[in-house]
Amino acid sequence: MTEFLTYAKSGVDIDANDEMVDKIQSAIQSTLGPRVINLPGGFAGLFRLDYDEKIFKKNYKNPVLVSCTDGVGSKVLVARQLKKYNSLGFDLVAMNVNDMLVIGAEPLFFLDYLAVNKLSPAWVADVVEGIAAACRVADCALIGGETAEMPDVYKKDDFDMAGFAVGVVERSRIINGSKVEAGDVVLGLASSGLHSNGFSLARNICFKHLNLKPEQKIPALEGESIGAELLTPTRIYVRSIVKLLGHYKVKQVVHGMAHITGGGLVGNVPRILPANCDAVINKSAWQPQPIFDFLQKSGPVEDAEMFRVFNMGIGFVLVVAPDFADSVAAQLTRTGETVYKLGTVKRGSGKVIIK
Amino acid sequence: MTEFLTYAKSGVDIDANDEMVDKIQSAIQSTLGPRVINLPGGFAGLFRLDYDEKIFKKNYKNPVLVSCTDGVGSKVLVARQLKKYNSLGFDLVAMNVNDMLVIGAEPLFFLDYLAVNKLSPAWVADVVEGIAAACRVADCALIGGETAEMPDVYKKDDFDMAGFAVGVVERSRIINGSKVEAGDVVLGLASSGLHSNGFSLARNICFKHLNLKPEQKIPALEGESIGAELLTPTRIYVRSIVKLLGHYKVKQVVHGMAHITGGGLVGNVPRILPANCDAVINKSAWQPQPIFDFLQKSGPVEDAEMFRVFNMGIGFVLVVAPDFADSVAAQLTRTGETVYKLGTVKRGSGKVIIK
Repeated sequence: MTEFLTYAKSGVDIDANDEMVDKIQSAIQSTLGPRVINLPGGFAGLFRLDYDEKIFKKNYKNPVLVSCTDGVGSKVLVARQLKKYNSLGFDLVAMNVNDMLVIGAEPLFFLDYLAVNKLSPAWVADVVEGIAAACRVADCALIGGETAEMPDVYKKDDFDMAGFAVGVVERSRIINGSKVEAGDVVLGLASSGLHSNGFSLARNICFKHLNLKPEQKIPALEGESIGAELLTPTRIYVRSIVKLLGHYKVKQVVHGMAHITGGGLVGNVPRILPANCDAVINKSAWQPQPIFDFLQKSGPVEDAEMFRVFNMGIGFVLVVAPDFADSVAAQLTRTGETVYKLGTVKRGSGKVIIK
Repeated sequence: MTEFLTYAKSGVDIDANDEMVDKIQSAIQSTLGPRVINLPGGFAGLFRLDYDEKIFKKNYKNPVLVSCTDGVGSKVLVARQLKKYNSLGFDLVAMNVNDMLVIGAEPLFFLDYLAVNKLSPAWVADVVEGIAAACRVADCALIGGETAEMPDVYKKDDFDMAGFAVGVVERSRIINGSKVEAGDVVLGLASSGLHSNGFSLARNICFKHLNLKPEQKIPALEGESIGAELLTPTRIYVRSIVKLLGHYKVKQVVHGMAHITGGGLVGNVPRILPANCDAVINKSAWQPQPIFDFLQKSGPVEDAEMFRVFNMGIGFVLVVAPDFADSVAAQLTRTGETVYKLGTVKRGSGKVIIK
């Protein structure tokens, strides 16, 4: 447990109390399955690949490790404004695990890097508890982490966080968009809000242009405060996507997937489109959450810019064989997703057309 | 190639020239072996675990993944002072891969997270080339990365970096210190200098207390400038340790290892000592590099504090069976290490005694 020992060691320097260490330890322990090997010393986190030969080897004849790294961008600054740090763990884990789902991988484990001006055990416990809670939702083990105190790099109360996730996919089941073809159906899964992208623009609009206080309630957001709305944790799509892919192990039903992050639908969906196809998306197929309309009107921001910067209510996209579109949508709905039939794939030149 | 695509995308925003992108791409490509799967889209980095079934399966019946994350602390500030960023990659890779060697693991792949005030393609190319060069020395593939531009968190010219390494070890060959016993010999491998620890104290002494300029030449350091001396890249012990362990696949010769980072010998060696053993280290067994003496006298800093904050010239420690100590030392010398017989393990209470 690199994480626990690191925090414990820090605790020695700064006289942290045992309660905090216990809280962190129990949060981390709650993420660990039977594949994690607990090693004293804490130089590294250990994860058994073949923890149960019968089950695992049946699933993975030719395992490919899939790895992602990402931070949460300037969403950290909104958390700081509100002094609410617990939900950032969901953003951090989501940014990484949703990326690997796109390949068809299932997450195995996660590590975090936190860098701060001044290490406060209570603050670290709060953040790590959030990360651990998100790891439980993403079915991955939090096997390590590092907390760096760097007063000469980070200003008072400033901090940054980065995450690393490792997953696995059977080589023959890697999904890379090469099967996408004209006629395929484009499905979208609802986001929970802004997720972790577009915060430079959103913060600029809310806190500079409108000069709002983070705790200010906004009628257009059903009375929610602007800070709480911006800080809504990123949705983690792991369980529904892993379950869906497990259902279609033989049939090639899901031809491509995209995690909608910076660049929006127009920037991310083309990453899985063949050069001779367009994805034609019908804007009336779904209704973005009120926050997007609020930001657009408050800017004002042009339509095209909104679609380049924000996810506009769609956090994850699947391109599926037309015969299976209804069945896929029904399954994803059953596992808790809000699913929209966004449009279809047509012959074209590798771009997204929103109309 | 997450990394390349991320940088390429950034390049679109900031009008980076193709030469820079080419430089980064070729640096990254130089680290990729046959196990890396190149996938368009760039949502994640992919690494085949069984890239050659005959070879790999012979070596790993029960593979355990080993993962580490770390940054380089405030060494980034010395790089900024000198405007020399290329060697930080060695620090970043070393901090992570040397940690996993301790378990007996061989590194497989690496990812980096860079966070900056303002993204400059030339700067990113410089840093990434350094990381890629270090990955080549550590025999691991640079399969992904993220560059975050966060002007509201990082001040002008400020930045931070975090790394993440994944390796593998056969379960029955995990080294955890449990075999360490009285009579074992403690070997130390020379560090290249400060490595990446103790920089708060070192910077304080050099740039505040002595008020040195980074380019100032120091007679006690053989005329080397203080900045260049502090910035000496961290030594990567991968090849010599992996080769050594490969030599002793059956015999249990290496009982424990420790990467000497923050906490020094007194903080890190106890992490692999049984509760009923001490490691008794003879200070006259080696001569720390001049930088340590320079810092100690310039502070002045007490002996005990020096050994708690700095590696004091020893970057990596092996605890080995006494009958094999000479053979291990000879092998490590042949693979390029400077090896010192630091002392022996005695009955005790789990601590390091330096005398």
